[in-house]
Amino acid sequence: MKLKAMGEDAVVAALLRGVPAGRGVIRGPGDDCAVIGSPCAKYWRLLKTDCVIETVHFLPNDAPEKIGWKALARAISDIAAMGGRPQQALITLAISRDQELRRATGIYTGLRKCARTYGVAIVGGETARSPGPLFISVALIGEVKRLRCVFRSGGGPGDKLLVTGRLGGSLGGRHLTFQPRVKEGHWLAYHFRLHAMMDLSDGLGADLPRLARASGCGYLLDKRVVPRNPGCTVKEAISNGEDYELLFAIAPGDVERLRVAWAREFPRLPLTEIGELTALAGKPRRNKKTALHGYDHFA
Amino acid sequence: MKLKAMGEDAVVAALLRGVPAGRGVIRGPGDDCAVIGSPCAKYWRLLKTDCVIETVHFLPNDAPEKIGWKALARAISDIAAMGGRPQQALITLAISRDQELRRATGIYTGLRKCARTYGVAIVGGETARSPGPLFISVALIGEVKRLRCVFRSGGGPGDKLLVTGRLGGSLGGRHLTFQPRVKEGHWLAYHFRLHAMMDLSDGLGADLPRLARASGCGYLLDKRVVPRNPGCTVKEAISNGEDYELLFAIAPGDVERLRVAWAREFPRLPLTEIGELTALAGKPRRNKKTALHGYDHFA
Repeated sequence: MKLKAMGEDAVVAALLRGVPAGRGVIRGPGDDCAVIGSPCAKYWRLLKTDCVIETVHFLPNDAPEKIGWKALARAISDIAAMGGRPQQALITLAISRDQELRRATGIYTGLRKCARTYGVAIVGGETARSPGPLFISVALIGEVKRLRCVFRSGGGPGDKLLVTGRLGGSLGGRHLTFQPRVKEGHWLAYHFRLHAMMDLSDGLGADLPRLARASGCGYLLDKRVVPRNPGCTVKEAISNGEDYELLFAIAPGDVERLRVAWAREFPRLPLTEIGELTALAGKPRRNKKTALHGYDHFA
Repeated sequence: MKLKAMGEDAVVAALLRGVPAGRGVIRGPGDDCAVIGSPCAKYWRLLKTDCVIETVHFLPNDAPEKIGWKALARAISDIAAMGGRPQQALITLAISRDQELRRATGIYTGLRKCARTYGVAIVGGETARSPGPLFISVALIGEVKRLRCVFRSGGGPGDKLLVTGRLGGSLGGRHLTFQPRVKEGHWLAYHFRLHAMMDLSDGLGADLPRLARASGCGYLLDKRVVPRNPGCTVKEAISNGEDYELLFAIAPGDVERLRVAWAREFPRLPLTEIGELTALAGKPRRNKKTALHGYDHFA
């Protein structure tokens, strides 16, 4: 079967069947990061790889500095989604021999800028010839206090769903310059008992069902309150993708205290309650009216 | 300036200028792996990324299982070259939507097989659409006892240079099925005081000068004794690349004891003394007669 007939989640599930687990692996594939450590260690190690590809994640004419920023910021966003702090990155750059050096150095300027901003050390990598599009792959190591690590899977029925910032319209430019929510994710994980969290990379429409599924829940989404970027329709806010905002689940009783503390800590960044997790009654709920769509690499 | 006018080492040097270092970084770019840890920890963490690209590192008709094996084995070889053990891997696969699922699952079969063989856990990754060639990037974490970690940079004048196995002709097929020298590298680092080590990926002709340069030395190579694979000329053995054998430097007084112990431990794998490191007299020695060539991604 061709990949485009399957969709991204089905492809990933088929590929990961039977991959060997190992000693010290707290969480393997399926969360924002892999988590390595011992069950009683003070800190756990977070591992993430992510890639950006010319014509898929950026265009040939995009500024090289912005391409570099995006390549690293995407991986940082996944560390943020576990409540963690990024530490070291390795960069793989595959680029045509016919490209000018200044494009490659421009990309590294963006990588360095992003690394400095988020306290990341670039400790190595690989530079190879690409016979096709430019390709940047980032491997990022981070850490999180064990007791503050937030998975996708800890949500339960009745949990409120909240999202940081505003959604939609990222392809207008923000997808190249966004600020991963490291401070926010860390603050949330340290001051509140979050039940589940992830970052929104493929759009709320693709990612919210993933968080619900990982938590063994259904969900209710109040589309009318989804925080939108200026000029975006509800549909665009839900399906555009590349928002890199945080989506998380928290006990209903904590929401009011969170609202007050958040407004004091991050007065300029909206925090919006957009729905809740629900119990799965028998088989997964399929409500056509609330069917959501987001970005799918293969569909 | 175009990349192809510069050559790989010059491109990498230009890109890495000014990348931010960080706390706990024992070794950044420029060795087989990055090394993270504290100066007195018992173990250090090794980080490596590596990629294989269709038409550059493998051909469209190569067996998917072998492509997967190669993608992971290359990174494992770099962990071996520090005397370390590989632990966890993350896989990024970029593949066209028009490809069949069985090609992707075949690649994962090879990745899994290699992971099992070398005790590696595949803990995550990323699957994305490629508009061009198939691309696999591997991030690999490993560890090494601090006191046994071998860098490229520790060699000194008079050190003997030895190489495991035989060189050349890898493109005939071995580049897809080679066995990274983890056991051998680990054994060497634990039983002998190696001064410097690296794995041969671009060919002795490109890699030996890198080891010598990292150690601040020149080198003498006795081309006549370079161990060759059947059917290979001396030139091919030196310049073909993709051997994934270990090259290391050791004090002359240790060579005899090593020879005896090696023959007992690895009776079927040759170990050959091929030359020595020399003092740099003023500026780097440029002896046309011993000028070497290996694989260069951009030249």
